[in-house]
Amino acid sequence: MPFTRRIEAAIAQAIQTGQAGSAPPKLASALEYAVMPGGARIRPQICLSVAHACGDDKPAIPDAAGAAIELIHCASLVHDDMPCFDDADIRRGKPTVHMAYGQPIALLTGDSLIIMAFEVLARQAQLDCQRSVALIRALTQSTGMPNGICAGQAWESEPKVDLSAYHRAKTGALFVAASRMGAIAAGHDPEPWTELGARIGEAFQVADDLRDALYDAKTLGKPVGQDEIHNRPNAVAKLGVQGAIRRLKDILGGAIASIPACEGEAALAEVVRKTAERLTPVAPVVSAHHQTV
Amino acid sequence: MPFTRRIEAAIAQAIQTGQAGSAPPKLASALEYAVMPGGARIRPQICLSVAHACGDDKPAIPDAAGAAIELIHCASLVHDDMPCFDDADIRRGKPTVHMAYGQPIALLTGDSLIIMAFEVLARQAQLDCQRSVALIRALTQSTGMPNGICAGQAWESEPKVDLSAYHRAKTGALFVAASRMGAIAAGHDPEPWTELGARIGEAFQVADDLRDALYDAKTLGKPVGQDEIHNRPNAVAKLGVQGAIRRLKDILGGAIASIPACEGEAALAEVVRKTAERLTPVAPVVSAHHQTV
Repeated sequence: MPFTRRIEAAIAQAIQTGQAGSAPPKLASALEYAVMPGGARIRPQICLSVAHACGDDKPAIPDAAGAAIELIHCASLVHDDMPCFDDADIRRGKPTVHMAYGQPIALLTGDSLIIMAFEVLARQAQLDCQRSVALIRALTQSTGMPNGICAGQAWESEPKVDLSAYHRAKTGALFVAASRMGAIAAGHDPEPWTELGARIGEAFQVADDLRDALYDAKTLGKPVGQDEIHNRPNAVAKLGVQGAIRRLKDILGGAIASIPACEGEAALAEVVRKTAERLTPVAPVVSAHHQTV
Repeated sequence: MPFTRRIEAAIAQAIQTGQAGSAPPKLASALEYAVMPGGARIRPQICLSVAHACGDDKPAIPDAAGAAIELIHCASLVHDDMPCFDDADIRRGKPTVHMAYGQPIALLTGDSLIIMAFEVLARQAQLDCQRSVALIRALTQSTGMPNGICAGQAWESEPKVDLSAYHRAKTGALFVAASRMGAIAAGHDPEPWTELGARIGEAFQVADDLRDALYDAKTLGKPVGQDEIHNRPNAVAKLGVQGAIRRLKDILGGAIASIPACEGEAALAEVVRKTAERLTPVAPVVSAHHQTV
């Protein structure tokens, strides 16, 4: 089964389990609204790609890992969009969860999706207890305090920002989780896979900065210029558009170079290349740039 | 070591781990502010009491279970106090987290504490992988969708409330988790312990309704009359004060009767009796009532 179908099936199963029995209808509906239809599912794609490169001996476990990462990523989007953070009205081209369901349900949607992510991983203990717990630990470390995405988001409330800690936690942590959890899910040591996730995370941050600086809200499906409004650090402000695009290419080259020698190495490099294409926000400019380099 | 010291030590250790390294200072501080000084820590007390009654062969595991339950309970208080829910200014006699740190940090405090709860449990895998995962599953089921405290809170956004599902999820679920997780943490079957938690949860709900109806904000350390303001179901509105107090006594009698035959049975019954005293909100009325019954 292609990765995309495996990922969507695992996410759909998790949501259905959360909607079962005597679930309150609005929150049950909001859970689905928050995760479907999804974006590119880049993090689960990385997770499954790494698991595949590591042999993928028990596919249900990487499927669960990919779903868990995406659920918690969606949770962070729902909470980040709320009025006390970005106050965003649109996300993925439709009203944000708090606009569609109200703030109380949005807050609970995020909470429920976080918990669901851990439940999905814990359910894998019937296949492999050690892997299940190792995945849970990897996910807590990349999402909670002191180094996960919650920490990253919290840096935005500080008068003096530790920029490196901010980016590493806010964007990098969940990409590192994606590559490490792919390895863990396939019974491999996650250490050699850390750099791949970290590099893709860096690239994603630069790409996000470019999109935020260059796109209009309609194209992007969410509000733009948020970094400038919220006075957040941005690679475009620091390097200029062309400089940021060069940086993006350098980082992705480093990501591919970091892939450990393994059977699925070439296929994984191809996934990173495709991710790079998807990430690169200003196609015409990049094409021109490609021709000259 | 007495239960109270074990619980506080486990909670303090979890918070310190979350504050380590390059943690953003405000969120690091808010985590501690949200859980210390604590309330009565009733849920961890129940958890450790049940574990003790079951032999308590690996004390670090029930300690972790008790801490995890309390962390997630505190997370729910932080989120429930926010303007989009109860809009409460005070909690446990001091400003609520969003009043002290602002809404963004309050939202992240709740998220981080939820994640921390699962991290604390996952760390116990080094002692016992099966128990660690069973505890994580018990906690996800009692906190997430469709039957956990998130579901309970979400019923308040529904035009038509399933009252039984509402109470079972909003208050009961975490007490059921406390008694079941105490058994799991000591390597026992949780099933015979479910009713004890459910009964204590029911009692707690009635006691909370009494406090909400009878106390002033200064005594209670949080806003009162919230049920009436938010048009929430309340036992006092349904049964009157004396009726609600009788109901509380009946439920607690049932809780004690439900304790399975075990070595620590008498000690556990004593813990429930003490919990009952602590729960009973109107001491003079109850004393008079005691003399006549």
